Amino acid sequence: MATNPEELPLVLILKPFPFIPSFQEKFSKKFKSLKGTDLSIPVNDFLKKECQSVKTLVCGAKFALTKDILDCLPSLGCIVLTCVGLDNIDLDECKKRGIVIGNADTVYSEDVADFAIGLLIDVLRRISSGHRFVRSGLWSINTEFPLASKLSGKRIGIVGLGSIGSEVAKRLVAFNCIISYTSRNKKPSVPFSYYSNVVDLASHNDVLILTCELNTQTFHIIDKDVMSTLGKKGIIINVGRGALVDEKEMVQCLVQGELGGVGLDVFENEPHVPEELIEMGNVVLTPHNAVETLESYTDLHELVISNLEAFFSNKPLLSLVKYE
Amino acid sequence: MATNPEELPLVLILKPFPFIPSFQEKFSKKFKSLKGTDLSIPVNDFLKKECQSVKTLVCGAKFALTKDILDCLPSLGCIVLTCVGLDNIDLDECKKRGIVIGNADTVYSEDVADFAIGLLIDVLRRISSGHRFVRSGLWSINTEFPLASKLSGKRIGIVGLGSIGSEVAKRLVAFNCIISYTSRNKKPSVPFSYYSNVVDLASHNDVLILTCELNTQTFHIIDKDVMSTLGKKGIIINVGRGALVDEKEMVQCLVQGELGGVGLDVFENEPHVPEELIEMGNVVLTPHNAVETLESYTDLHELVISNLEAFFSNKPLLSLVKYE
Repeated sequence: MATNPEELPLVLILKPFPFIPSFQEKFSKKFKSLKGTDLSIPVNDFLKKECQSVKTLVCGAKFALTKDILDCLPSLGCIVLTCVGLDNIDLDECKKRGIVIGNADTVYSEDVADFAIGLLIDVLRRISSGHRFVRSGLWSINTEFPLASKLSGKRIGIVGLGSIGSEVAKRLVAFNCIISYTSRNKKPSVPFSYYSNVVDLASHNDVLILTCELNTQTFHIIDKDVMSTLGKKGIIINVGRGALVDEKEMVQCLVQGELGGVGLDVFENEPHVPEELIEMGNVVLTPHNAVETLESYTDLHELVISNLEAFFSNKPLLSLVKYE
Repeated sequence: MATNPEELPLVLILKPFPFIPSFQEKFSKKFKSLKGTDLSIPVNDFLKKECQSVKTLVCGAKFALTKDILDCLPSLGCIVLTCVGLDNIDLDECKKRGIVIGNADTVYSEDVADFAIGLLIDVLRRISSGHRFVRSGLWSINTEFPLASKLSGKRIGIVGLGSIGSEVAKRLVAFNCIISYTSRNKKPSVPFSYYSNVVDLASHNDVLILTCELNTQTFHIIDKDVMSTLGKKGIIINVGRGALVDEKEMVQCLVQGELGGVGLDVFENEPHVPEELIEMGNVVLTPHNAVETLESYTDLHELVISNLEAFFSNKPLLSLVKYE
């Protein structure tokens, strides 16, 4: 590739891109980046003014790639996502324009699975709640801390047995949990019980863990009916997307004691979290950071570079998203 | 057994015994209990006055069974512990008097292992810290949350590969961690690397998990030298006993940034926790509740009853502690 910075291939970066310092240097030796972050003008104006020849875009989960945005980028041929989910992209428009898309593939799967287990243990075993108990000084005056609930042996239903869900299942088997799942189709090579819908899954489990993608079929897949079926002691862990859950109904269920507890890394209206959840002892809330480790970001950065290099060499992207 | 309550075998109960309501009823149909809890007189006076004929004692972890206490119970033949550790008992005196001891055996092993994994994920992946970040409102004003560290693939050293340690190892294998251990002796049937001392273990690992018992050999087994060897990114999880760690040195290491983080369910001077730890983001503190689930207490209660029945029927205790 060219070594004169002006001759390097141009890459537009739309926020948020989690640069780690060692990567920044490596990236800038291979590509000339055009940053659409911290703009002083509206993003559409910037795109129309500065990005008419831009062929490649690197973009994170929190930026909506609408038709309107795509209209501002007439030369765009390749989008490299730093996330797995495609819920913020107008896929039909991209397909129409022949844009190839690469996503984060399985780079985050282990981290998200680890995090889901962490949230689950935290909710069941009251770890964050115990930490607050100690911090507040209540323990040192011998106040009683409530009994928790055991993880080992629990029946766990996984919603979406893809890359993340499979990693979650593998871990929970080692905790002697009984695993079942729902997904679009029964997976022939999997040893766990399959339920064709989430209400059936809820009726056979103590816990639901949400690891599926958000799309029109899975929007509010966890509704009032599912939560009532799961019942008063039921636990929900969400490491997928906020809108998999009808959040208003979930808040109601928790307020009325109709759900045992929740561990949420994602919310319908991030970064805003329903006020009612903040003080609840049976609720653990994290700032959508299930993917955020130095290790997975390092792997992601390698993948981003490889995808861009593949595009500029007319090769298939390494983590090419297939249009349906 | 007799049905007249006055004819039931007498059992002395010294705090803290974690009664769950369903058990209380079952217990009172089989035994007449004499409670040494919430006393208005000094415990020694109560024992001398009321317990001279008492043959059996049920007792928890937090009551020290010293020679002085044993002197007040001349008829004592059996102690049933609701804990696993023997660190609060004068074993030599018990042996001399021919007292048989039953402990909680492996009743808590799964729960403590689950909890250790929960603490580890919490520290590495900043779950409690993330929860505080959300609760404080910092997320909603778009403050940056720091990158965490991945669990999968980490090198984990287990100090004491007994019942709890083995359960911890089994779980961490499913997280693709690399396990090694130290214990009194190398275990021939175990597939993990063995180190004969804890400094060597620390030098080969990212994390140490303490699951061994507290005795004269393991007191302050985690000293300054071990912590320095583990290093600035090293994590320590303690679900054993507080005094396994030189707590003052640990606080110093954390204050000076010479240790990456800790997850502690136990402390040297419970329920008092070093003030310096309270506000640290890389520290998770819980109120010695790793064993406290409804499920393990139910199992414990069954074991306590079975042990007492065995003693009164002149049979061996189910979870008999062997004197060395």
